[in-house]
Amino acid sequence: MRAAVMRNRQLLVDEMKAPEPEAGEVLVRTVACGICGSDLHALKHFDQFTELATGMGSTIDPGADLVMGHEFCAEVLDHGPGTQKLHPAGSLVCSVPMLLRAGSPVTVGYSNAVPGGYAEQMVLFEPLLLAVPNGLPADHAALTEPMAVGWHAVAKAGLTADDVPLVIGCGPVGLAVINALRVQGIRPIIAADFSPARRALALALGADEVIDPAEHSPYDSWRQAAAASEQGARAEVNPLTGERLLPPGVFFECVGVPGVIDQMMVGAEKGARFVVVGVCMESDPIRPLLAISKELNLQFVLGYTPEEFALTLGHIAEGRMPVAPLITGHVGLEGVSQAFSDLQHPDQHAKIIVEPGRK
Amino acid sequence: MRAAVMRNRQLLVDEMKAPEPEAGEVLVRTVACGICGSDLHALKHFDQFTELATGMGSTIDPGADLVMGHEFCAEVLDHGPGTQKLHPAGSLVCSVPMLLRAGSPVTVGYSNAVPGGYAEQMVLFEPLLLAVPNGLPADHAALTEPMAVGWHAVAKAGLTADDVPLVIGCGPVGLAVINALRVQGIRPIIAADFSPARRALALALGADEVIDPAEHSPYDSWRQAAAASEQGARAEVNPLTGERLLPPGVFFECVGVPGVIDQMMVGAEKGARFVVVGVCMESDPIRPLLAISKELNLQFVLGYTPEEFALTLGHIAEGRMPVAPLITGHVGLEGVSQAFSDLQHPDQHAKIIVEPGRK
Repeated sequence: MRAAVMRNRQLLVDEMKAPEPEAGEVLVRTVACGICGSDLHALKHFDQFTELATGMGSTIDPGADLVMGHEFCAEVLDHGPGTQKLHPAGSLVCSVPMLLRAGSPVTVGYSNAVPGGYAEQMVLFEPLLLAVPNGLPADHAALTEPMAVGWHAVAKAGLTADDVPLVIGCGPVGLAVINALRVQGIRPIIAADFSPARRALALALGADEVIDPAEHSPYDSWRQAAAASEQGARAEVNPLTGERLLPPGVFFECVGVPGVIDQMMVGAEKGARFVVVGVCMESDPIRPLLAISKELNLQFVLGYTPEEFALTLGHIAEGRMPVAPLITGHVGLEGVSQAFSDLQHPDQHAKIIVEPGRK
Repeated sequence: MRAAVMRNRQLLVDEMKAPEPEAGEVLVRTVACGICGSDLHALKHFDQFTELATGMGSTIDPGADLVMGHEFCAEVLDHGPGTQKLHPAGSLVCSVPMLLRAGSPVTVGYSNAVPGGYAEQMVLFEPLLLAVPNGLPADHAALTEPMAVGWHAVAKAGLTADDVPLVIGCGPVGLAVINALRVQGIRPIIAADFSPARRALALALGADEVIDPAEHSPYDSWRQAAAASEQGARAEVNPLTGERLLPPGVFFECVGVPGVIDQMMVGAEKGARFVVVGVCMESDPIRPLLAISKELNLQFVLGYTPEEFALTLGHIAEGRMPVAPLITGHVGLEGVSQAFSDLQHPDQHAKIIVEPGRK
C-alpha cells in the first residue's frame, strides 16, 4: 500500500507493507484523515517531539518510519482473529486512535508499530469502532477527533449557568471549543484571534463576538460582554461598594505558545478559571503571585473519553455541530507535504483533509 | 507610642503618634503579633514588594514609615465614632487585618495609613472584631491569621473522601495546612521538608508521615502511602490492566520558590490537583505539556474569608487546632529586628511572637 511517511525528518510518499490485524483488530481502508497541528509540530520539532512522547509513555524510534494521522474515518475491509465482526466489511467507521497490544495502549498516528491515517490502510481496535451514521460524509466524520477535544475541554471546565466563556485562539482547537459551547447552549461566546479568516470561522460556528487582539484587549471586551450578559445581570453585588460584580470567567487557552497563560492571568478577574487546551511544548514562565492574588484555577486538559468521542460523532451526524466550515482543502497522499506547508498560514487554511484514495 | 518601624529599608524602634479611630473603628493595644514570612520578604525585597502591592491594589509609599504585623491579638482601649461598642474596653479581640476607609479596604500591616501589630496600639474595624474566648492566651489567638490561611487552602481544595493529600513544605503555611487537614479528619497526611525541626513540628501537628526530600522522593513516598491507605484500597481499577489505580492526589505547594510547581508536575500522577499556597514572588517557569499530559489542576489561593477566620479562632480556642508547638520565641519591640534574622533559620524557628508591651 502507499502512505505519506515521515522518514529522516521528511514527509515523502512511499510503498509500504499493509498492516495485518492482530487479535481484536480490524483492517480498514482510510477514507479521510484530518491534518492536526500536533503533526505539524512533530515534523518541525522532531527530536523534541520524540523525547516528549517517550516522557509521556510512548516510544517512538527516531530512525524508523512513522505514518502520522489520528483524525480519521475509514471503511472496514477485514476482521482479525478474535473479533466479533460487529461492523461488516464496507461499513464506514470512526475510532479513538488507539489500539491495545499486550495490554498496552498504542497511539494510532504516533507509533512505529502501526500506520496512521496518512496511509491507504490501517488496523483499528474493534471495541473502539463507531459506525458512521448513514449519510455523514467521511471528511466530516473524520473531524470527530478534533471536535471531541473541544467537547472534553468544555466538559472539564465544569461550566455553570453563571459562567461567561472567553476563547483565546480560533484555530481548530478553539473552533472545537466554540462548537461544544454552542451545542451546550452556553452564551455569550466571546473569542479572540489575530486572523480575520479564523474570526469569520468562529462567527460561523456560533461565537457571539470576535475580537482582534491587535485592535482591542480580549479581556476588556470580555468584561463588557460579561457585564451586559444575562449572567452579568444576576451577578453578585459587592457588599462594600454596592457595585455589581462581573460573572465568573472561564477562559479557554487554545493557542499553546509561551507567554499566553501569563497574559491571560494579567487580563483575568479574580476567581477566573482557565482551561488550557492549547499544547505548549516549550517551557513557559508564569508569575504565581498574579495567579495567587486572583485565586485563579488552571485546569490542563488532554484528549477525551471514548464516551465523549461517541457523543461528538452523534452531534456532528445529527447536524448540531457543523464541521464543514473548517474544511479548507482536500489532498491525496502526494499533497500531504504541501498541505503541511499551507497549514502554516492561518488566514488560508483551518483543516485540510487527506484522502489517501484520491488521485 | 512605640513601634518597630520599617523606615529606609531598615527596621528600627521609634516613637510615633498613636492612631486615632475613625468612624466604625476601635482603638486597641497590641498584646501579641506573629511575624509572617511575607514581612521578611517585604523587608528584604522592599522595592519589588511595593511594586507588587501597588499592582494588587494597595499603595505603599516607599518614602514613608510602615509598621508591619498582621497576625495579632489585641485588647480594646477605646471606641471611635459610629461604633456599636460590642466589645467593651479590656476585651481581648482578634480581627481580619483590614479596615474600610471611604469604602476602600486598607490592609493593617501593609499600609502607611495605619500601624500594624509591631506597634503598641492599632485601630481595627469593629464589624470584623472577634472576641477571644475566655482563657485562650493572646499569643495563641494571634496565630488565628496564619492558621486561617491553611484552613482556606484546604477549603479551596474541595477534598473528597477519596483524596490523599501531600504537603510540600512545612513552614508556618504548610503547618497550617496540616492543622486544617487533621481537624477535618483527612488522613493519611504526608508532608515533606528538608528541615528536621520542621518535620518534627509536622508530626506534632498530626502528619502521618514526614519525608526528607534529600533522602527520598516525596512523590514516591506519597505513592506508597496512598496505595496503602483506605482510599487506595477502594481506588478504581484500570480496566485494561486490572491493576488498582492510585487514589487522587491533592498536593499543597507551601514553599513559594521558583521551580517547585514544575517539580510537583513531574512527580504527580494523572489527574492530581495542586493547591498553590506558597507565595512565589518571582517568575516561575512551568512546562504546560507536563500538566496537559496528566490533566493537572492548579488552584491558586490567597487569604481566607471572615467566616473561615472565625471558624479557625474557634478551632484554636477549643483545643482542636494546636498552635503552641509553632511558637519558638517571644520578643519585645527591641527584639523584632533580631527576630527577622533568626527566622531565616528554619531549624531554629517557626513563629516568633512580638509582644509590644514586653520589657
